[in-house]
Amino acid sequence: MERIDELQRGGFRLIQDPDCFCFGTDAVLLADFARASSRDKVLDLCAGSGVVSLLMLARYPGAHYTALELQKPLADMARRSMELNEVTDRVSVLQGDLREIRSMVSAGAFDVLTVNPPYMKGQTIQNVSEAVRLARHEDTCTLRDVCEAAAYALKYHGKLFMVHRPERLAEIFSEMERVRLTPKVMQLVQPFSDKGAAQVLIQAVSHGAPGMKVLPTLNTYRSPGIYTEEMLKVYGMDGHVHPGETYS
Amino acid sequence: MERIDELQRGGFRLIQDPDCFCFGTDAVLLADFARASSRDKVLDLCAGSGVVSLLMLARYPGAHYTALELQKPLADMARRSMELNEVTDRVSVLQGDLREIRSMVSAGAFDVLTVNPPYMKGQTIQNVSEAVRLARHEDTCTLRDVCEAAAYALKYHGKLFMVHRPERLAEIFSEMERVRLTPKVMQLVQPFSDKGAAQVLIQAVSHGAPGMKVLPTLNTYRSPGIYTEEMLKVYGMDGHVHPGETYS
Repeated sequence: MERIDELQRGGFRLIQDPDCFCFGTDAVLLADFARASSRDKVLDLCAGSGVVSLLMLARYPGAHYTALELQKPLADMARRSMELNEVTDRVSVLQGDLREIRSMVSAGAFDVLTVNPPYMKGQTIQNVSEAVRLARHEDTCTLRDVCEAAAYALKYHGKLFMVHRPERLAEIFSEMERVRLTPKVMQLVQPFSDKGAAQVLIQAVSHGAPGMKVLPTLNTYRSPGIYTEEMLKVYGMDGHVHPGETYS
Repeated sequence: MERIDELQRGGFRLIQDPDCFCFGTDAVLLADFARASSRDKVLDLCAGSGVVSLLMLARYPGAHYTALELQKPLADMARRSMELNEVTDRVSVLQGDLREIRSMVSAGAFDVLTVNPPYMKGQTIQNVSEAVRLARHEDTCTLRDVCEAAAYALKYHGKLFMVHRPERLAEIFSEMERVRLTPKVMQLVQPFSDKGAAQVLIQAVSHGAPGMKVLPTLNTYRSPGIYTEEMLKVYGMDGHVHPGETYS
């Protein structure tokens, strides 16, 4: 059943369906990590319900956003969220397969690209809906597909912002380099200071020069259930945005 | 002028020459990060004064170590350190160029490899000795040379432990994958919790399966000049080993 959540950013609301797929910490981290300038054209791949575009729009109202989502029900929800927020002139929702991106957008048309791709490979989870399975698993698009689509859609020196799993880091860098996306900034996110990283945030630049900056590792929790100051900032200071689902 | 330093491990002492090159935090971090089993054959590339082999020997006395160093004065000091510690039966010192490793050791002869390679590329520092320049810069061996030598010397599923600079991470992974060294464990080391990483520790496995574990980021200092508990452990609990030189 659908519900409408307050995003606590720019007064925006988001239509979600917990039976289908709700955004998680990954989307919030990605939208906080990404940067855009006024008049930038921003493409969000694997957009889901459009949450990343809305969170980005709240911070960078001068940019224009395109949210591409494979699954019809999710793309439809995203479209209705944009109508609800009266931002259809700022956010376009496209339904389609990123492996066919050449038929949907022009080469080099975007300044900025954000993506929270499916992160699991060769594994199956039982008891999850088809929508969740598609959003989480690489059945429909691999890391290589994502990097190829990004390299095609980004202009020369355009920026890619990705959230992914640290265990895939070597593959991510290698797929990025294959299509001349140069990793430039990296940040690990770990739940606690004594626990391994759960997420990695990466900024890459199309045809960038080699050399990467590693930001201080972000710790999510101060103690169980209590966010750190840094994480409260990611959630917009008051910490009221509770993701519908966490992946850990 | 040469001096003899106490290593505070296994009662070992090390001959060093501050005018030439003294070991730093990198070597201590690497020796702490690396693992060996009894009867393992361990090769240390870019061995310098042999500090990594001695620190490893103190922890894993059952293994046999080979320290390969390009610079004659450093290899000579390493050899005399092994004599001083009466461990010439446990540590062999080789002087030679790792780019000619095929003429020095057999293919797949080692179970474990440690390396603290020159980490700077295309930069020059003024006012440093030739020895320091060679040890720090890739004039004599590139990241690719190091990875190729490691892939040659390691047995199937042998383990490589490397310390390097985080800004080179994407290149490191990509050079490793080129020669089928699969990154399996990674740890960032940052001076303070709010500062970016200064070092990265990587464990790779020859022909390993993809998938990497990211360990909790290690913070070096609690406050300026005061090590964290974790870093004191790296230095052998009492924190008395002061590196002759730090790179930061």
